[in-house]
Amino acid sequence: MLASPVEPAIPVDAPANLFAQVRNRTCVLAAPLSAEDAMVQSMADASPAKWHLAHTTWFLERFVLAPRPGHVPFAPQWDRLLNSYYHSAGPMHARPQRGHLSRPSLDEVLAYRHAVDACVQARLDAGDLDDTARRNLLLALQHEQQHQELLLTDIKHAFWCNPLRPAYREDLPVPAPAEAPPLQWIGVEETLAWIGAPAWPGADGFAYDNESPRHRVVVPAHALASRPVSNAEYRAFVEDGGYRQPLLWLSDGWATVQAEGWTRPLYWDEDLEHAHTLGGHRRLDPAAPVCHLAHYEADAYARWAGARLPTESEWEHAAQGVAGAGNFADDGVLEPVAAPAGAAGAPVQLFGDVWEWTSSAYGAYPGYRPWTGGIGEYNGKFMVGQWVLRGGSCATARGHARASYRNFFPPAARWQFAGVRLARDC
Amino acid sequence: MLASPVEPAIPVDAPANLFAQVRNRTCVLAAPLSAEDAMVQSMADASPAKWHLAHTTWFLERFVLAPRPGHVPFAPQWDRLLNSYYHSAGPMHARPQRGHLSRPSLDEVLAYRHAVDACVQARLDAGDLDDTARRNLLLALQHEQQHQELLLTDIKHAFWCNPLRPAYREDLPVPAPAEAPPLQWIGVEETLAWIGAPAWPGADGFAYDNESPRHRVVVPAHALASRPVSNAEYRAFVEDGGYRQPLLWLSDGWATVQAEGWTRPLYWDEDLEHAHTLGGHRRLDPAAPVCHLAHYEADAYARWAGARLPTESEWEHAAQGVAGAGNFADDGVLEPVAAPAGAAGAPVQLFGDVWEWTSSAYGAYPGYRPWTGGIGEYNGKFMVGQWVLRGGSCATARGHARASYRNFFPPAARWQFAGVRLARDC
Amino acid sequence: MLASPVEPAIPVDAPANLFAQVRNRTCVLAAPLSAEDAMVQSMADASPAKWHLAHTTWFLERFVLAPRPGHVPFAPQWDRLLNSYYHSAGPMHARPQRGHLSRPSLDEVLAYRHAVDACVQARLDAGDLDDTARRNLLLALQHEQQHQELLLTDIKHAFWCNPLRPAYREDLPVPAPAEAPPLQWIGVEETLAWIGAPAWPGADGFAYDNESPRHRVVVPAHALASRPVSNAEYRAFVEDGGYRQPLLWLSDGWATVQAEGWTRPLYWDEDLEHAHTLGGHRRLDPAAPVCHLAHYEADAYARWAGARLPTESEWEHAAQGVAGAGNFADDGVLEPVAAPAGAAGAPVQLFGDVWEWTSSAYGAYPGYRPWTGGIGEYNGKFMVGQWVLRGGSCATARGHARASYRNFFPPAARWQFAGVRLARDC
Amino acid sequence: MLASPVEPAIPVDAPANLFAQVRNRTCVLAAPLSAEDAMVQSMADASPAKWHLAHTTWFLERFVLAPRPGHVPFAPQWDRLLNSYYHSAGPMHARPQRGHLSRPSLDEVLAYRHAVDACVQARLDAGDLDDTARRNLLLALQHEQQHQELLLTDIKHAFWCNPLRPAYREDLPVPAPAEAPPLQWIGVEETLAWIGAPAWPGADGFAYDNESPRHRVVVPAHALASRPVSNAEYRAFVEDGGYRQPLLWLSDGWATVQAEGWTRPLYWDEDLEHAHTLGGHRRLDPAAPVCHLAHYEADAYARWAGARLPTESEWEHAAQGVAGAGNFADDGVLEPVAAPAGAAGAPVQLFGDVWEWTSSAYGAYPGYRPWTGGIGEYNGKFMVGQWVLRGGSCATARGHARASYRNFFPPAARWQFAGVRLARDC
Repeated sequence: MLASPVEPAIPVDAPANLFAQVRNRTCVLAAPLSAEDAMVQSMADASPAKWHLAHTTWFLERFVLAPRPGHVPFAPQWDRLLNSYYHSAGPMHARPQRGHLSRPSLDEVLAYRHAVDACVQARLDAGDLDDTARRNLLLALQHEQQHQELLLTDIKHAFWCNPLRPAYREDLPVPAPAEAPPLQWIGVEETLAWIGAPAWPGADGFAYDNESPRHRVVVPAHALASRPVSNAEYRAFVEDGGYRQPLLWLSDGWATVQAEGWTRPLYWDEDLEHAHTLGGHRRLDPAAPVCHLAHYEADAYARWAGARLPTESEWEHAAQGVAGAGNFADDGVLEPVAAPAGAAGAPVQLFGDVWEWTSSAYGAYPGYRPWTGGIGEYNGKFMVGQWVLRGGSCATARGHARASYRNFFPPAARWQFAGVRLARDC
Repeated sequence: MLASPVEPAIPVDAPANLFAQVRNRTCVLAAPLSAEDAMVQSMADASPAKWHLAHTTWFLERFVLAPRPGHVPFAPQWDRLLNSYYHSAGPMHARPQRGHLSRPSLDEVLAYRHAVDACVQARLDAGDLDDTARRNLLLALQHEQQHQELLLTDIKHAFWCNPLRPAYREDLPVPAPAEAPPLQWIGVEETLAWIGAPAWPGADGFAYDNESPRHRVVVPAHALASRPVSNAEYRAFVEDGGYRQPLLWLSDGWATVQAEGWTRPLYWDEDLEHAHTLGGHRRLDPAAPVCHLAHYEADAYARWAGARLPTESEWEHAAQGVAGAGNFADDGVLEPVAAPAGAAGAPVQLFGDVWEWTSSAYGAYPGYRPWTGGIGEYNGKFMVGQWVLRGGSCATARGHARASYRNFFPPAARWQFAGVRLARDC
Repeated sequence: MLASPVEPAIPVDAPANLFAQVRNRTCVLAAPLSAEDAMVQSMADASPAKWHLAHTTWFLERFVLAPRPGHVPFAPQWDRLLNSYYHSAGPMHARPQRGHLSRPSLDEVLAYRHAVDACVQARLDAGDLDDTARRNLLLALQHEQQHQELLLTDIKHAFWCNPLRPAYREDLPVPAPAEAPPLQWIGVEETLAWIGAPAWPGADGFAYDNESPRHRVVVPAHALASRPVSNAEYRAFVEDGGYRQPLLWLSDGWATVQAEGWTRPLYWDEDLEHAHTLGGHRRLDPAAPVCHLAHYEADAYARWAGARLPTESEWEHAAQGVAGAGNFADDGVLEPVAAPAGAAGAPVQLFGDVWEWTSSAYGAYPGYRPWTGGIGEYNGKFMVGQWVLRGGSCATARGHARASYRNFFPPAARWQFAGVRLARDC
Repeated sequence: MLASPVEPAIPVDAPANLFAQVRNRTCVLAAPLSAEDAMVQSMADASPAKWHLAHTTWFLERFVLAPRPGHVPFAPQWDRLLNSYYHSAGPMHARPQRGHLSRPSLDEVLAYRHAVDACVQARLDAGDLDDTARRNLLLALQHEQQHQELLLTDIKHAFWCNPLRPAYREDLPVPAPAEAPPLQWIGVEETLAWIGAPAWPGADGFAYDNESPRHRVVVPAHALASRPVSNAEYRAFVEDGGYRQPLLWLSDGWATVQAEGWTRPLYWDEDLEHAHTLGGHRRLDPAAPVCHLAHYEADAYARWAGARLPTESEWEHAAQGVAGAGNFADDGVLEPVAAPAGAAGAPVQLFGDVWEWTSSAYGAYPGYRPWTGGIGEYNGKFMVGQWVLRGGSCATARGHARASYRNFFPPAARWQFAGVRLARDC
């Protein structure tokens, strides 16, 4: 094999440092929600906030505490309810019925969180976690960050389904009007590039198993857009009849447009000037990246624009070495904002604001090995029918984003903060 | 027309006497539920308890207060959410999505109830309700009683869908073991009978429009069972392979058995000895009437037993003049109990315990007139595809039952307290 | 029981006289169809013409020949394919997949017909059919007549689904323009009437088991329209926005209108002036009875017109003693024609032209007994979820119609020649 | 860009030589079918044989003849029926309803074929086809070959859906029993490989647009199985409970197994020893490649075997330079046969017998350009949700297979002759 210049690119804190911070953050995110709000499951793809709070705790208990000698399960009767999709961990409640669970109550779930957290903290303080437990603890925190983002996207959808259109938080800041810098094309020569992350654990930095192994790919000559597509640009596509022209769409995309009656992005008003946000009903910022697109819509827009979606290799190659600056959940805006001006020839907004759909189907890297044990079900079994998104969004925890990170969703999914950056051949 | 011996058979209290009592009873029924419990909609046919609390209040405001001069609506933004099916009252939220509504909160709904109740009471006290308003108030209270029963059947289903199988109330009494009296056949000669209730308002007693006009029917010679079928008797049908024998079933019933995988009544355990109840998981009482049957199941059982379902005319003819004794919601048992011994040749348990499926499709009586105004949508538009049940159940308010009362549900519905009394030709 | 003045009202030919005539008629009806035409199943409710040809033969063999000693089945491997819904006769091919059966071929099916017919004829000639066989032979011929009508309605639908819109027969006559007589209301006093037919066999005239026993009913005072609703009258309903006004519809009907996008009768063009017929695409005759309505549409029209549908008792009471004149399949028109002028106070067009939807759910008459043996599945198991139609249509064999005949279809079915005659209370 | 060593690897005949041969071959394949057989559409994914015959002719007329000056369309009223999915060519009949089309008849379709063929031949003879027409003619013949294979797989499915289980041809040879050579692992070093075909037209050899451009990829170090998995090997997986073990399956695959009740390959009998074939019901050849697998099944088998599916790059790299020997439709066997012994270290059966599922989602090669004009809809719009198969099958025309050929189907599709060759990392 050709030599791989492994450099531990992604330094991480040890679990102990992150633990209280990450676990507490979930509760902070859920704090604006009443027990009733935390019950809503507005579609099968989404989950109630209460379930996110409980499932992440179950995951922590199951994979960190349960293997420890002498651990007495806190709530074994909840196993079936809180198991998401781990066949090796026993039976599971049907996903579309998570919203029917009034019990356990939110209070009981929060008490469960506190009990498990106290137990983990005590073991951390006592140095009573072996290598596997510490590995799984770090994994559990990454897992928790994923559910933090889902909690936000799921409640955004839930409130949109209520004709009263409540705001998640009335006090979210409204970004000041800004101009987006002109879209520039950044040329890239054909090259052999290293993609992916060294297998963790082993490497210094955390990475999911699906990001490994680090491997070489041919990145073809191409040009990448300097920033994501803006609301104003996408609106021109809508006004040009983009949703009525089958030749712009993938075949499955067009079938979905017709079956679902899509005429504009999810959450946009019919006037194409306002939208539902976590901060309530608002005027769309024309300069901000367009958001809540399906892969199908991102792809159709690109075709209309005479461009295409980037591959995940192209994206990652561009993102390597770029500082992970951007608008993340930590910034408390929870909506994408207009791209900043960047250096000439350098892409901006790769990280944060909106996940960027790629043209790459989610699949195994060459030499991919799922983790061993129950967590082997974490990623690998979804490697069919999903498409890769890159970069993180305004609802992602900043520490969760990295150049090699592979998010994935089915091509019809719209409720994530997903936008589009163009690429083209040259 | 032949002369009709109208006698106002059903004396009623004036609305003022009933008002506080009925409205308060709904809150009492909802009291054991947390805000989360009151959110659950476990299937499209059911509604959340919170919605029942709110919709009944909306009905009261809409049809009693809103027509009064000067009335300022309490919460017009909720109209869409709380309108069940009244096209004349504006648009309505899709029924299967009532469980997605975290807002208004339970507290807001209870405050709404108190505000509307205070307003109605003030008008009652001031004598400020005209005939139509008083008519609609009485109707609203009957409507409220229907939703009280639905609140109970819906929460029973909701808790059954939660693998934790919570009890609605842990403190419900468990009836003492009893024997059911032997099933006897009570012969009835062919006769011309009066059926139905005089049109209300006009007559003294309240009746829904679908119970009128009073009219003559030919009741054929037949025999009616002295009591409903018991759990023990139905269990013999199950054990005899009743659910595997297509010749016992109506064609649509057999299709449903196969599509839904029915093998026993809803809520029964696989051992045929235990069941889910509002009081939690319990041993089945062999002597109590079998319950939670679909029309299809009631019909198949009857065929297996060499009998048939009674028509609604046969049932009503038998029930006329029978005292409305029986096990009702007011008794606080909330499960059917074994039939009492009755007088020789007299049926027992016609009222209360379990609704009794008839072979009669729900349709208009000759000369039927829907009420005028918005309440004209109350009953008439459901006169296709539904089958009549008679008598009331252990979840019905005692004052709500009467000989002429026509309850109706689709033939596949199982979540009501519905059982079966046999009839046969002779 | 009150004495029943049984009079054998419906004289029938002996089976021998009818046999060749009825069996041959089916082949005549199928003659305009190619083997490919005879394969089409354009929806699950319909069957291919080839299947009708084969199934009726299977029915004949199964219930007439098979019980005879020494009978060797002609094609036992086809049993599964040709059994429609007789669980007592073994397994059956899924109904929606009848159109997938290229084998047996049309030629094989016709050969099967000839073989079975020859065998029956030989036994008839030899006097070698016992009472049961002769009973079942007569039943098989009635059964065949039902399938003759279905063959026509199914091929009409099949050709409508083909964008080429072929005609079943190019040579069908186009009725001369005519005026419909003015619609008059015929008053009927309240009366105790005899309804139904004496149980067959036993009585002289054939009747299905569902027409018996003859029994008394109270027919209320009412008025019946002198003729069915015409195309011109129904068109006024459409033009008045009938399909956009929920208050005119039964709840299930309105749900169907919205789900299916109904805006006019099946087969009508958007211009409301032309329609698809068995004779090809034609101008609608304004004076002819409107046709191809669902029960829901008939009911909505009646409500719009300030009237209602008649009950089946009202209809049968009016039809008793009326000569069965009318436009039947035997007349070779295969479309409804304008009503003739009638005597004052006498209804016209009760028989033939269009089946008339009633408000009566299809159910058992008091004392109903299904036939014994396999043919007991013929009618009784459909006594839920279907509505009764009366009178016969332009696609019905004349000899098949009678005053007591009960046709039945689900309330959303539109592909039969079904129209509407109004009634109203008085 | 790095220099591309383009070698026209795939010599093709000029269109004129192929024309009569390919067009005639379709008729030969359809010859064993009656007009009724040629009507059957047993599932939405399949099409009737008659439709294949007609659509390929429409394609030829549309893209070769129609653009020629003075061409008068043969049957413009069929355009809607015969257009498969070309939005630029006008509206199209719903795919699942192709089986409802008795008209045009098979005879009319064959006459249409002859008329169009004569017209094309005349223009070929007259040298009256410009470059675009000749390009489209060659494309139309490739297109026809694809439909030849679909005609076989669709009729195989159609006959399997008929309980009579007819054979497509009773006279197909049954291969003599043979042993499959032991499965060997052929190691491949990591390498930079050229993949794909030069863009056609331009290059000498025909290739679809989706095979181009030729480009470099990193092929990782791996081992490839010397032959496809055999029936005997797959049967061991079934007998080991493979269809009951969720951990072996992709998540979507397991959901499909449960929803569809899969327990073995399509067409296998429950005894795992017999199967439905185009030659009728037969004993499975244990040595022949397993066939009619979904991608999900191929993937699950590979996981059970401790291996994985190859990528399409790995497969193509192995196939380059290998003679295209194998069992093709031209050989008239129409079932896979046991692999021949091969040279040590050389894979066998890469071509013919069974398509081999890869782990590669079907997507655009870097620099992909869809063809211009209407044929641009041919391939590109399906580049989502489909997985790549390689190599051709026993139902493929020999001249249609090549190393760069990319077949694609959804991962749940089973009715193609699709099998599995293992790969593994090393």
